[in-house]
Amino acid sequence: MKPVPDDPAPYRTLVRPQGERAIDVIDQRALPHARVDVRIADASTAARAIREMWVRGAPLIGAVGAYGLAMALDADASDASLARAYANLDAARPTAVNLRWALNRVRARVAPLAPAARADAAFDEADAIAIEDVAINRAIGEHGLALIREAAARKGGIVNVMTHCNAGALATLGYGTATAPIFLAHAEGLPIHVYVSETRPRLQGANLTTWELAQRGIPHTLFVDGASGLVMQRHAIDFVIVGADRVARNGDVCNKIGTYDKALAARDNGVPFYVALPSPTIDWDMASGEGIPIEMRGDDEVVSAAGRDAHGDSARVMLAPAGTRTANYAFDVTPARLVTGLVTERGIARGAMALAMLFPESAASRDA
Amino acid sequence: MKPVPDDPAPYRTLVRPQGERAIDVIDQRALPHARVDVRIADASTAARAIREMWVRGAPLIGAVGAYGLAMALDADASDASLARAYANLDAARPTAVNLRWALNRVRARVAPLAPAARADAAFDEADAIAIEDVAINRAIGEHGLALIREAAARKGGIVNVMTHCNAGALATLGYGTATAPIFLAHAEGLPIHVYVSETRPRLQGANLTTWELAQRGIPHTLFVDGASGLVMQRHAIDFVIVGADRVARNGDVCNKIGTYDKALAARDNGVPFYVALPSPTIDWDMASGEGIPIEMRGDDEVVSAAGRDAHGDSARVMLAPAGTRTANYAFDVTPARLVTGLVTERGIARGAMALAMLFPESAASRDA
Repeated sequence: MKPVPDDPAPYRTLVRPQGERAIDVIDQRALPHARVDVRIADASTAARAIREMWVRGAPLIGAVGAYGLAMALDADASDASLARAYANLDAARPTAVNLRWALNRVRARVAPLAPAARADAAFDEADAIAIEDVAINRAIGEHGLALIREAAARKGGIVNVMTHCNAGALATLGYGTATAPIFLAHAEGLPIHVYVSETRPRLQGANLTTWELAQRGIPHTLFVDGASGLVMQRHAIDFVIVGADRVARNGDVCNKIGTYDKALAARDNGVPFYVALPSPTIDWDMASGEGIPIEMRGDDEVVSAAGRDAHGDSARVMLAPAGTRTANYAFDVTPARLVTGLVTERGIARGAMALAMLFPESAASRDA
Repeated sequence: MKPVPDDPAPYRTLVRPQGERAIDVIDQRALPHARVDVRIADASTAARAIREMWVRGAPLIGAVGAYGLAMALDADASDASLARAYANLDAARPTAVNLRWALNRVRARVAPLAPAARADAAFDEADAIAIEDVAINRAIGEHGLALIREAAARKGGIVNVMTHCNAGALATLGYGTATAPIFLAHAEGLPIHVYVSETRPRLQGANLTTWELAQRGIPHTLFVDGASGLVMQRHAIDFVIVGADRVARNGDVCNKIGTYDKALAARDNGVPFYVALPSPTIDWDMASGEGIPIEMRGDDEVVSAAGRDAHGDSARVMLAPAGTRTANYAFDVTPARLVTGLVTERGIARGAMALAMLFPESAASRDA
């Protein structure tokens, strides 16, 4: 893989070493307690890494799938091998849209080629997917950076930014989405402090975002999800920025559970609320957030919490009485009226009309 | 202790067995995983139970302190013994207002008496404190019950109530405050379902409120704090009811962290938001919530979670990187504008003026 442009991070979620037909990824299940790098050199390991969540985050999953398909073709470039590997990788996380998108892209590139040329072309396409993701995130970062520069110029001190969950480099090929402006601001020496909500039940804020910020030396403070309003009141938060799982064409935002409550606290305290998103996250066919299905997950995540015990071993502790029923929604929908701006790779859209104007080719195809 | 009137619970947080000069309490540290009852028969054990949080909740702590003072006088009724036991018990939780109030009340009762009469009088006063608390909570319950009856009559089905933290019988001598209307409704056969937020970081919702509801056979569902808004949208919540740690005379409510965020979600979704409180919780000298100091606790509660491991043993797991800084506020302030009504033992006050009219003797003393 060609080097990621300008990301000064001491970690990379995915690296293809020069000349290798393999990738190295971080096993994110061990974070933040240990940094475990894993080499993936065949398609079945790639599928396992996706299925067992060594890697997570839609863009990252897509790239791992693309490389997995290339590895399968490196071992056996026949049509049958291509079909088998595609099916196997596609089944690893059936609901991740980016995974199928990336697999389709590699397949479309190699299918017309003679088998002998397929593996090289597949690795080339996977590299392109990875590099494009970094470029998109970097562009999101540049647009969001303007918000931080503006706050820094206005107050002349530390800029306080709040985020939720992990929309960081760990979910992508570099920079992340919501974190990209923060990383760029820190790299250019702007004083910034990040307030991270822990993001129950899966704790991606506590586990992953804090780890990324610590790795980059960016000052940060962790708080429980219910403290969003009070932290805004007591810590002069300049703005909130979060990622998105899906955005409807009216600007409603589907994102990790807790996002909507945070947007309400922002409005009540006069704090601007931004959402960072690469344009593939916009669902132009979805008129509003009301149509977005919300995944309901099992009770286990809520009645227990996972971490490291006193011996440093992975452990899960029960928090509630055995058999307690839960309402474990993975996402919520933040109505567009609560969103100050959508930070995309083409600029910041303030409202649905502005969003359509930034992406006229996508918006227009649904008018009629 | 005379029997608690009409509380049909299969557990009591504090019982003084007939004729005994001792009390039995539930060691709440083991809940919800185990029910451990402990006998307290001397003042130093009473102080330890308060200090080490075998018991928590302001009214319960006050009663345990009162009985502890009685036990000290039973062993040695001298003035020196009284002073020593008072100081020792008072220091067990220095910030709990109810504790000092209860100790003062017992001391005032026994100080004028001859030593030989002191122990009996002290137990009698402690019994009175316990019984009065149950009576206050029962009255709160009756007033709140009207809200549930009204919702049941209007919709003709299950009434869905949301609560936060534990303002239950476990924090009091019986019925609890926010739970009192729920327990009474269930006892009279009204169909009710309770939605409980887990209440990070100390998880009193997950640990204690679910346990109380399960003990009483009341259907309930647990959810993470960030899901308040979505649960209101998806589960037709009829109203929210929470407890209070302190209420200013303008009706601002200081309560467990996460209460304010929940009140905002309620307003955005048109869900009434009630606060249940015994009148001693009203601080008539505090003009508004802005003056209420908010306790900031250590990082440990946020960077870790406590529960039971796979072997059933108490365990604490680390969630965030070692050394992560936190903003661990124990409480927040919900402005009066977000509160539909204050449910007191004298009725439901809708607004600060109504509150002053319910308690004219207290409100008037601060006018001038």
